[in-house]
Amino acid sequence: MATLPPTSTPNTLSEDSPLLYPLFARVRLATPSDVPHIHKQIHQMAVFERLSHVCSATEASLAATLFNSPPFQSFTVFLLEVSRTPFLNPDPNPNPSFVPISRTINLDFPIEDPESKAFRIDEDVTVAGFVLFFPNYSTFLAKPGFYVEDLFVRECYRRRGLGKMLLSAVAKQAVKLGYGRVEWIVLDWNVNAIKFYEEMGAKILQEWRICRLTGEALDAYRHFSDL
Amino acid sequence: MATLPPTSTPNTLSEDSPLLYPLFARVRLATPSDVPHIHKQIHQMAVFERLSHVCSATEASLAATLFNSPPFQSFTVFLLEVSRTPFLNPDPNPNPSFVPISRTINLDFPIEDPESKAFRIDEDVTVAGFVLFFPNYSTFLAKPGFYVEDLFVRECYRRRGLGKMLLSAVAKQAVKLGYGRVEWIVLDWNVNAIKFYEEMGAKILQEWRICRLTGEALDAYRHFSDL
Repeated sequence: MATLPPTSTPNTLSEDSPLLYPLFARVRLATPSDVPHIHKQIHQMAVFERLSHVCSATEASLAATLFNSPPFQSFTVFLLEVSRTPFLNPDPNPNPSFVPISRTINLDFPIEDPESKAFRIDEDVTVAGFVLFFPNYSTFLAKPGFYVEDLFVRECYRRRGLGKMLLSAVAKQAVKLGYGRVEWIVLDWNVNAIKFYEEMGAKILQEWRICRLTGEALDAYRHFSDL
Repeated sequence: MATLPPTSTPNTLSEDSPLLYPLFARVRLATPSDVPHIHKQIHQMAVFERLSHVCSATEASLAATLFNSPPFQSFTVFLLEVSRTPFLNPDPNPNPSFVPISRTINLDFPIEDPESKAFRIDEDVTVAGFVLFFPNYSTFLAKPGFYVEDLFVRECYRRRGLGKMLLSAVAKQAVKLGYGRVEWIVLDWNVNAIKFYEEMGAKILQEWRICRLTGEALDAYRHFSDL
């Protein structure tokens, strides 16, 4: 559970200037075959947050709990792919509910990806990040929204606007569906992330705290109605 | 958007002592025919929170956005009913996925309900509260959970353990489904609510803040992929 944006976002998303080292980026719906890549990134996020001891997700448990509903109706994953060459395949798994979003990033130097093999889709395309989100609901608006559970960009691809691209794709989809809000959480000491989110137009709700019932404290309610 | 518990919870849920003024309470799945009662309570909650100016929910907008999925798969409402006589009708709309939970509360004095007519189900049964919740997801656990958007008990029925009964019903259902967490939010200055939730076993996450993209700031992403 976390949202992990790039710590700064220079405006490198541009198609105007000549392309010295273009990086082609695409956001598409993830599919069950992407679970291994999603799983590896969840564990990288847990390591980054020093929470790997509480990360028990496995490929099997993710596969069992994701992709059980049509996109956007329940837990949904957008995958971020990058390539040094343009995407020729429009979408490996086209879905009428979402058209992939593409960008070309003009880099001054090519990115060295030390884990490109582990995150390879094919000989050209590499997974660079993901966002996992699902519907929430506001009774005051009487409208659904989206809650973003995880936003992750792999380390070597950060600070290029790719986190913004992923989150923007969720926001655009929310607007398209007529939804009222996109919400997520941030650690109060992560000033770079807060600045990044505020620049994207988000308000930080200072007064609200999350309450969590889990583990044995939750299990204690197993026999509630028998009391 | 709010969770509004009773400010204190004396242990009045008891079936041991002689019943001077019994109040029979039942938590059942809400149905589309309950929308008017849910709508009135949402507006009472908004007034209580001095947020009625941002509460735009109507019966029509609630009816259009709730009850579109089977219970627990998306936005779900439990309704709290009370009666001075035992519930004879087991459940007006039986659903195999949830058996109503009943309690008998032994009161020292009968409760005067100044709005009993507005919240009447039939000549014996009155709506006293509701809880609206929906699935969320933890990638670290690779498990769904429930997020409680609203917990409301009508004013004259507070401080009798009925808020706890509603929230416990959600927790029990989460355990039944093998879910990992039940989460909700609370205002940081609402010390009575925080105490109540901690007594129920919840942890308050002090470091996390909610980020919200809404209104014009969200609408700005309408044309994101065309940029």
